[in-house]
Amino acid sequence: MREDLFRQRVVSLQTAMLAQGVDAFFASTPVNMLYLSGFSEPPLERLMFLLVPQQGAPVWFVPALSAESTATNPAGWQVRYVWHDSQGPMQALGACVSDFPLETGVIAVDDEMPAGFLLMFQEALPQALFRRGAELVAQVRAVKDATELALMREAARLTDESLSAGLERCMEGYSEWAVALAIQRALYDAGSRLAFGIPIVAAGENSSKPHHTTRHRPLRQGDIVVIDFGGVCEGYCSDITRVVSIGPASEEAQKVYQVVYEAHMRARETAKPGVPAQEVDRAARRVITEAGLGDYFVHRTGHGIGLSVHEPPYIVEGNTSLLEEGHCFTIEPGIYLPGKFGIRIENVYTLTEHGAESLNAEPPIHIREIL
Amino acid sequence: MREDLFRQRVVSLQTAMLAQGVDAFFASTPVNMLYLSGFSEPPLERLMFLLVPQQGAPVWFVPALSAESTATNPAGWQVRYVWHDSQGPMQALGACVSDFPLETGVIAVDDEMPAGFLLMFQEALPQALFRRGAELVAQVRAVKDATELALMREAARLTDESLSAGLERCMEGYSEWAVALAIQRALYDAGSRLAFGIPIVAAGENSSKPHHTTRHRPLRQGDIVVIDFGGVCEGYCSDITRVVSIGPASEEAQKVYQVVYEAHMRARETAKPGVPAQEVDRAARRVITEAGLGDYFVHRTGHGIGLSVHEPPYIVEGNTSLLEEGHCFTIEPGIYLPGKFGIRIENVYTLTEHGAESLNAEPPIHIREIL
Repeated sequence: MREDLFRQRVVSLQTAMLAQGVDAFFASTPVNMLYLSGFSEPPLERLMFLLVPQQGAPVWFVPALSAESTATNPAGWQVRYVWHDSQGPMQALGACVSDFPLETGVIAVDDEMPAGFLLMFQEALPQALFRRGAELVAQVRAVKDATELALMREAARLTDESLSAGLERCMEGYSEWAVALAIQRALYDAGSRLAFGIPIVAAGENSSKPHHTTRHRPLRQGDIVVIDFGGVCEGYCSDITRVVSIGPASEEAQKVYQVVYEAHMRARETAKPGVPAQEVDRAARRVITEAGLGDYFVHRTGHGIGLSVHEPPYIVEGNTSLLEEGHCFTIEPGIYLPGKFGIRIENVYTLTEHGAESLNAEPPIHIREIL
Repeated sequence: MREDLFRQRVVSLQTAMLAQGVDAFFASTPVNMLYLSGFSEPPLERLMFLLVPQQGAPVWFVPALSAESTATNPAGWQVRYVWHDSQGPMQALGACVSDFPLETGVIAVDDEMPAGFLLMFQEALPQALFRRGAELVAQVRAVKDATELALMREAARLTDESLSAGLERCMEGYSEWAVALAIQRALYDAGSRLAFGIPIVAAGENSSKPHHTTRHRPLRQGDIVVIDFGGVCEGYCSDITRVVSIGPASEEAQKVYQVVYEAHMRARETAKPGVPAQEVDRAARRVITEAGLGDYFVHRTGHGIGLSVHEPPYIVEGNTSLLEEGHCFTIEPGIYLPGKFGIRIENVYTLTEHGAESLNAEPPIHIREIL
């Protein structure tokens, strides 16, 4: 059953490889190994990869230290090439290369793979043509299957729950850092972890910086607080941004929130299978520009999300590729008034035939005031 | 003054390049950019590197987004090649390549650089010979100058101080996780951060796993607790491991602690300029083996440390390279009795002409009992 899942993913990748004339894909990043086999190891100093030929079953090339654990990979791909520290990887690589007709082939590698590994491949296969493979596999990974969607939903649920723990600390007497820590602890307690860095908790004037670094600034009456973080479920990431006001929100903050909320909802309505990704960005930007605040929306509207926090499809001007059913991405327009405050509202959506379905709880219609 | 420092480091690198017939080094990891210029950016999706020719001043190749910030680099290296998102990096790379006589040269790159960047370099310079450069620069970085030693000392001081915050939670009523969190918070309060992961806090039977993942296990009377973490000061890392006993330590634990302490001290006395690194490992191992516990010392004795937590010189059997004045490394022998408990004692040392000087406070002679 689970084997079928990975076989299906490999077939999708092989279809894309065939279309692009790629003879083999060497998957070496933890994320791509996990996607294609259900198994991965943290990034290693030792050469390890899953060789996906254009036809037939993938096989593993691993250091001896990892042979036993790799053999348990849920996809059941065979651990065929094992190398020992005492010999180094070149001999096993030679054996591997002579088993597959790759001498003059086109081999795609992960863009983020360490360059030192690519130099080893090139030494073992001097006639082969190596090319970047990130887009190839990203395009396959962008469309989530049912198993992945279930994990994306669970990651969003954990994220929403952990947000509540943070909101409980959104009051005078606590600091940005205390809120971030409460979120981190709640995720940890739920068996999850942060999808990226430390939660962004940006209070008062700090909220006007989209990527503020959370510090000890105390929360004060009248502060706008932007909270942005994500949890993880079995490798699948979530992402959310919410805004609260400590005490009643100013009229200006309420007005700006309404503009961002409206931009968020227009973008969401625009997102449908067959629509170019940039149209979703344009829909959000139009609302903010028409409100005279276009100069203060300084980033793209969203990004794809899955095993990586940032992956295709990017919701950005210039991305003319079409959205598809099963895509998962954020919508997160924002307005940042320098030295005053910022507002951003972010949810993760998945596309169904009917449109964008939110994986997080619905964003509040009005700014949340903590009185 | 500071410019001289970076000029000196570049000259050391160029001397090593000349000796190995390397015509240029493309420094692209944040750590190597920081080392050679005082400036770095977090890893980017966009191609950025410092080109170090075999002679003369290095120059920057950067995306437009980073041009302004890079121009502030303390070394004062010129930002000469700037590329824009609308064009991509290949045109600027062509200009760069025609300014330097690299067409048939040997170019060293960072092993951990993304392979996608190497493929761009190879496209722009099809005749050049690319090779791994990690050892080249690691060998230069291994010898710390006075500025670096001051930062290493400060990182160790911050680490020792944060340890105290963790020790305050080493009692019944707290968990592994609570101790780890106290350490993390103390580092953060001091303007520092963790050098790696979450602090290892391994209580009771968990302490017999050298790389235990800290969990919610409550601390109980009679537990041995191993605490291992490091802080950071301006990029320079520290690392420490201490062992405490909740309540009086068993006779067996005290005995094992004495063996590890003795192994630590013998290794430390052995570490002197001109001694092969493996001799330090052997000195520690001999003590543990003679105590009949050799099978339970399952890892190397230590690792170099600096801008990376793990870097040369590795204190391990097989490393015959000679220790030098200015090297910084850990000594951290351990004994792990499966299902029972483990003991590890780790300090960071720097080599002076007289021998190994500890950057952390001296390790306690007896197991610390928290009564």
